[in-house]
Amino acid sequence: MDYKVIHDSLHGSIKVEGVFLELIDTPELQRLHHIHQTGMAYLVFPGANHTRFSHSLGTHFIASKIAAALSLADEEKTLVGVSALLHDIGHGPFSHTLEYAFHTIYNLSHTDQASAIISENTPFIREREILNTFTIPEILEKYDIDPKNVSKLIQGMKVPYEWTLTPWLGGKSISTSNYLTQIIHGDVDADQLDYLLRDSYYTGLAYGIIDLPYLLNTLELHNDTLAINPKGVEAVEALLVARSLMFSSVYYHHAVRIAETMLTRAAEESLKEEPGLMSMSDWEFFSYLEKGSDYQKDMVTRLKYRQLFKRAYVVPADSVDENERAIFAELADPETRKEKERDLCRKAGIREGYALMDVPERDILLSEPRITRVGIPVYDGEFKKLSDYTPTAAALQKRRVPPWALMVSAPLKYKERVEKVCEKVVFQ
Amino acid sequence: MDYKVIHDSLHGSIKVEGVFLELIDTPELQRLHHIHQTGMAYLVFPGANHTRFSHSLGTHFIASKIAAALSLADEEKTLVGVSALLHDIGHGPFSHTLEYAFHTIYNLSHTDQASAIISENTPFIREREILNTFTIPEILEKYDIDPKNVSKLIQGMKVPYEWTLTPWLGGKSISTSNYLTQIIHGDVDADQLDYLLRDSYYTGLAYGIIDLPYLLNTLELHNDTLAINPKGVEAVEALLVARSLMFSSVYYHHAVRIAETMLTRAAEESLKEEPGLMSMSDWEFFSYLEKGSDYQKDMVTRLKYRQLFKRAYVVPADSVDENERAIFAELADPETRKEKERDLCRKAGIREGYALMDVPERDILLSEPRITRVGIPVYDGEFKKLSDYTPTAAALQKRRVPPWALMVSAPLKYKERVEKVCEKVVFQ
Amino acid sequence: MDYKVIHDSLHGSIKVEGVFLELIDTPELQRLHHIHQTGMAYLVFPGANHTRFSHSLGTHFIASKIAAALSLADEEKTLVGVSALLHDIGHGPFSHTLEYAFHTIYNLSHTDQASAIISENTPFIREREILNTFTIPEILEKYDIDPKNVSKLIQGMKVPYEWTLTPWLGGKSISTSNYLTQIIHGDVDADQLDYLLRDSYYTGLAYGIIDLPYLLNTLELHNDTLAINPKGVEAVEALLVARSLMFSSVYYHHAVRIAETMLTRAAEESLKEEPGLMSMSDWEFFSYLEKGSDYQKDMVTRLKYRQLFKRAYVVPADSVDENERAIFAELADPETRKEKERDLCRKAGIREGYALMDVPERDILLSEPRITRVGIPVYDGEFKKLSDYTPTAAALQKRRVPPWALMVSAPLKYKERVEKVCEKVVFQ
Amino acid sequence: MDYKVIHDSLHGSIKVEGVFLELIDTPELQRLHHIHQTGMAYLVFPGANHTRFSHSLGTHFIASKIAAALSLADEEKTLVGVSALLHDIGHGPFSHTLEYAFHTIYNLSHTDQASAIISENTPFIREREILNTFTIPEILEKYDIDPKNVSKLIQGMKVPYEWTLTPWLGGKSISTSNYLTQIIHGDVDADQLDYLLRDSYYTGLAYGIIDLPYLLNTLELHNDTLAINPKGVEAVEALLVARSLMFSSVYYHHAVRIAETMLTRAAEESLKEEPGLMSMSDWEFFSYLEKGSDYQKDMVTRLKYRQLFKRAYVVPADSVDENERAIFAELADPETRKEKERDLCRKAGIREGYALMDVPERDILLSEPRITRVGIPVYDGEFKKLSDYTPTAAALQKRRVPPWALMVSAPLKYKERVEKVCEKVVFQ
Repeated sequence: MDYKVIHDSLHGSIKVEGVFLELIDTPELQRLHHIHQTGMAYLVFPGANHTRFSHSLGTHFIASKIAAALSLADEEKTLVGVSALLHDIGHGPFSHTLEYAFHTIYNLSHTDQASAIISENTPFIREREILNTFTIPEILEKYDIDPKNVSKLIQGMKVPYEWTLTPWLGGKSISTSNYLTQIIHGDVDADQLDYLLRDSYYTGLAYGIIDLPYLLNTLELHNDTLAINPKGVEAVEALLVARSLMFSSVYYHHAVRIAETMLTRAAEESLKEEPGLMSMSDWEFFSYLEKGSDYQKDMVTRLKYRQLFKRAYVVPADSVDENERAIFAELADPETRKEKERDLCRKAGIREGYALMDVPERDILLSEPRITRVGIPVYDGEFKKLSDYTPTAAALQKRRVPPWALMVSAPLKYKERVEKVCEKVVFQ
Repeated sequence: MDYKVIHDSLHGSIKVEGVFLELIDTPELQRLHHIHQTGMAYLVFPGANHTRFSHSLGTHFIASKIAAALSLADEEKTLVGVSALLHDIGHGPFSHTLEYAFHTIYNLSHTDQASAIISENTPFIREREILNTFTIPEILEKYDIDPKNVSKLIQGMKVPYEWTLTPWLGGKSISTSNYLTQIIHGDVDADQLDYLLRDSYYTGLAYGIIDLPYLLNTLELHNDTLAINPKGVEAVEALLVARSLMFSSVYYHHAVRIAETMLTRAAEESLKEEPGLMSMSDWEFFSYLEKGSDYQKDMVTRLKYRQLFKRAYVVPADSVDENERAIFAELADPETRKEKERDLCRKAGIREGYALMDVPERDILLSEPRITRVGIPVYDGEFKKLSDYTPTAAALQKRRVPPWALMVSAPLKYKERVEKVCEKVVFQ
Repeated sequence: MDYKVIHDSLHGSIKVEGVFLELIDTPELQRLHHIHQTGMAYLVFPGANHTRFSHSLGTHFIASKIAAALSLADEEKTLVGVSALLHDIGHGPFSHTLEYAFHTIYNLSHTDQASAIISENTPFIREREILNTFTIPEILEKYDIDPKNVSKLIQGMKVPYEWTLTPWLGGKSISTSNYLTQIIHGDVDADQLDYLLRDSYYTGLAYGIIDLPYLLNTLELHNDTLAINPKGVEAVEALLVARSLMFSSVYYHHAVRIAETMLTRAAEESLKEEPGLMSMSDWEFFSYLEKGSDYQKDMVTRLKYRQLFKRAYVVPADSVDENERAIFAELADPETRKEKERDLCRKAGIREGYALMDVPERDILLSEPRITRVGIPVYDGEFKKLSDYTPTAAALQKRRVPPWALMVSAPLKYKERVEKVCEKVVFQ
Repeated sequence: MDYKVIHDSLHGSIKVEGVFLELIDTPELQRLHHIHQTGMAYLVFPGANHTRFSHSLGTHFIASKIAAALSLADEEKTLVGVSALLHDIGHGPFSHTLEYAFHTIYNLSHTDQASAIISENTPFIREREILNTFTIPEILEKYDIDPKNVSKLIQGMKVPYEWTLTPWLGGKSISTSNYLTQIIHGDVDADQLDYLLRDSYYTGLAYGIIDLPYLLNTLELHNDTLAINPKGVEAVEALLVARSLMFSSVYYHHAVRIAETMLTRAAEESLKEEPGLMSMSDWEFFSYLEKGSDYQKDMVTRLKYRQLFKRAYVVPADSVDENERAIFAELADPETRKEKERDLCRKAGIREGYALMDVPERDILLSEPRITRVGIPVYDGEFKKLSDYTPTAAALQKRRVPPWALMVSAPLKYKERVEKVCEKVVFQ
């Protein structure tokens, strides 16, 4: 069979053929060349320009390795490989950056978007027609793969299951998943293994904590559940440590978060009117905003040249009492937050949009619901909880990421003015 | 002094302070976040999304290490560090991609552009004014650094010396350089060490051939010349091997080259009218073309979704006789080449612009004049040529990069039609 | 000056000249080529054959980097570089393996031994005479370095300070150290940075957690104290994580520990009679034992071919009550422990020496007193404790390494017999 | 099935079970923990303490990967996996160091020794009896594997073929091998891939030139021949470059070679009387010599503390004429060489054994017959020679390794005396 060997800086090289090769050539996957894997983190970590494309390929690679290690049936291998490859095609510009804003308006996550593209022939890409290539559903059909199954795995479902914000925020975890779902959306899944390794490689941080070959060698299938052999417990511990470090050092680095908040505020209004923005690439989105309002233009210019807002006021996460928690819960609603921001700007005597509030709690759960979960079972004759084997799991669950409950940012020259009025505005 | 420690995936971390910190914050350097270091190579090597920004920082890092290893005076250290940091600010979108086209119109290379920005306060960035930051000449003045010296080092000059295409094509090499120039523009220089290492790291190819710490330890200063200790000869050999492999595998990979040819053709007409295009970032340039002619729009769409032209006809470099060499020399002139392309399209019965000729010989000399040079001296009591120590140098000089003298590409569906008429059109 | 560039797989390459070059050529340092850095860990991690020689060189390299980063005076740089290079010359065969046994007999640690060699011209190496080379004190004198200062740094002293077991076991930490001592024997010192990185590299475990370049860039000198800038806190966190993982995965891996217990028991009797055994290399020691008693011969044969004892009985560290703690405290005394072992063998009906008890608590403090310490201060205008910045420090201090308070091992065929009588013998 | 996951610093981790697990536990394989993979290279590259054990495991790992990539039958996979694991069990102390000397006496190579152990129940290990474990033939029988086949693959045979010095020196290459042999003993085989990667990793030289994942993805089976896809040609080129660099930088580094010559001379006499020396480990061999003659004792002491002989006289390989070639050919015979050495010592007025001649030509062919071969075919529809695709292959064949035809070494203090008489003694 014809094949391609694609170089990957992380995994060495990846061989693709058949259905995988055809899927890679679709515009939906090629578009991911233009989506930064870690949003605006490249402004702080100049090496972090890697894309959702290389991550999709890498997730496909790891998922296939897991499927091979577990000696799954050929059909299952294909299903897992396809789902891994397509799992991120629903991402908007700058990956998770706009996701929370979009979700509060349309109640759709990027996995919902992916699911729609895969099963409904949705014209996600404007130029689809002139490109005159096969659509994803057409390719899947050609290879006899049911798009519904792909779609379910990507959404983390086994049987009908609501992969929405509700159960996460309610603290419920997925109860009915099985091994195929676990490979794509579990606690030690291909997606997470690839992104942690890849983001480490490109940021230059903590590369190597995760011992991928060892993990692959200690994953086992018992009945319909993926579990880890006790030999692998320390490798899972290390994975949890890596995740925790990457979240606090990279994804929730304060400057990264400020940049992303700036972009989100610039986008919010347009998002309401044009849901199609979510099918843009990073640069199309920047170009779009540049032609927009003065505020949008200003934000893009600042981001382009890294003239970021500065921290003006911070409420540490571990100092929050019940009362305050209620206030921040309300601020998670974009309209409420904007109202407060407007109030803040007015009191500080600056233009609207030049003091921004970041209340990350729910946001983080949308982008990474696994952050508080350490659910992979250990199997030593019977299923055990990971926390029975190591206290690290529990300890890391308590580590607050990010360390702030609220962060207010503003241009350097307004910093002091904003700082002065913050406490009053927020807590009254 | 206030300092920043910037993570770099290649060098670990880089400490910047003083003049370097201020320079990094200028829009000219921040713009480099949006210029792919290896042009369109990311379409073939999906990890190669690294930018001229990280390369500039890395070159600064290596240049400073060399300066420290040679115990240069503080003033020299600063000059070398600044020159390394700024050496690439004159790059147009997609780095070297458009350089040859631009050069044939305006007779300016990217180092000339850099020089202009550094010494003349040229308003390279449109949004400079609203950003309200210091310019590079202002910062240099503040720290008592003569922009002329920076400018000279970047252009590879010691004393008045024409760093233009002429001497390279004439086979002349720099005769009057000294150690400061050598660190920035020599045969084992900071620029080259960083880009080879960095491009290896991000493409995933041949990483590790170059033994940077060893080279740093065996560089020595004798009189005003940088030389290598005989202990380091094998490390230089390995550098030459790495360079040769990277050129044939990455920079002149046929598909990368086709993509870059497509972009160049789409840009050529506009370039003549708007020299300012060279100050755009990659994405601004893509956006610009997208709003242009039908042809430009089509090319951008194809590049965006990786629908590249295919090789239709290739003349291998090592089969070219005198007569043919003369023909290719003429084709190096863009107008002659375009005429031939038009002829080709007419004869093949396809629209103009859909069969493209790539004649790389001069082009490569503009982007990397060092490719045929192995000039670092070895010092073992007296200066020796590297070729006295190892035959590898000479062998690699003979290795043809790229392997074609002419490559014609066209969309897959026209491939056969174009193939048929090529020989006749080219050689008559 | 004449120099050598020595390749080091970890740090790339290390340049040595002057006093360092002469010291490296002494038999005391060359002997370290034959001492495994991680004792018998190579039986579990087949890559871990690295030696105290490469570690000494690496510690020298890092200490010199720290000294340069802090811009110390040339004299201090030399002192620190020499101390780092010599800090491990007092190690007995298989590094820490026999150290506790030796210490309980002679009340000497390996740093005491090093100190003696450096300042007293002790004939540590039998073949010294025939080698006809300069001694370490002679070389130090030639370069005007006071051996007393080297000796003090290696023993962790600033002013008179008892670097013995007592303060550690009493939970006291060093109170009077200053920056020179800290570089050699602090909480983020050159020794520890090198061994964690090196042991990771050679075992293939968790390589890359420690961000050496970043740490080097964030160490600062305030008054006479080495402190970390707040920017570096997460890098120190990662160091603590790495240390904890390496201790539980490698140094206290149960099989490594069993092998080391076997070797210690084989050595104990001879050690009492021949303190000179501590100047042997690994292979000289193996050869010595092979010519010894039947028991010694048997142990060496088993170790040579990896026929290790197996765990027969384990008391987990976190289940120990006050009463039991007292029992284990007594077992830390070798004579008491041996008495118990004899009792155990008798009751199990096996030959003496074929059931061994490992009570690691004090042992670990001798080999790594830093294990429970996280003492590097953070400086953000004033000195702060690391634990004020991150909860990780405290969490890791609680992580029990090793996880057992007592482990009894025996040959596979005796395992059950031993298991049966253990509880009774130990707790009565 | 019960399995072990062994950490390997190079390949991450290796899973072993069944027959492989049982073989690993035999004393023949465990002995390899005590044989340095790169002989005495650790005296120049202090990281190079890796062993034949880790190399055997790694070769097994790569061979299994190749077998899987080619979708071989289960039986073939096992055969290839076993052969790779056992291919080096016949190595004497310090790997190739003594091989040439041993071969000239007994006409046996290390693969002949391995073959004998595998198929004849030879009591290679003295302590075999008391260890009371299964022998290799017993284990193979238990798993229904024919020792003859293993033995043949290890000796590079397909059908009866004389794997001796004769065909190599005659310039003949193996003509009848097929894919199973090629995996174990071909031009891109598992053995070579592992040792080049591993030796790079541990010496710290040129790590990463070889792109193992890419090679694995481009190996193909056509009829009964292993070939490389044209996509993989550059990866094979890089392998050849790596091999050439490792030979000149490491294996034939002049100081490494001097150390090995010293050890060989110390061993030669004893070797004749006690062929059993070849079953010793490195340290047993050192101990044996230490109890031997004064000369042997002196050599061991010098090697232990790195007091090596120095180069006194060198004849470069590329300056040798026909006449001289004949002289060196005679010197390849140990007796002739010794006679000359004696003559040299007499004329220089020093004790016998203190001026040593190294004539490496035949020696290198015994330790690495592949050095001049670049025989893997390229398959692009038909079999092509590698040299049809790239000139690198031919160029590297011409690169002389080692660069000397003759090197005479002596203790530093005798260097001048020896130098003076060399030319006369050698060429008359």
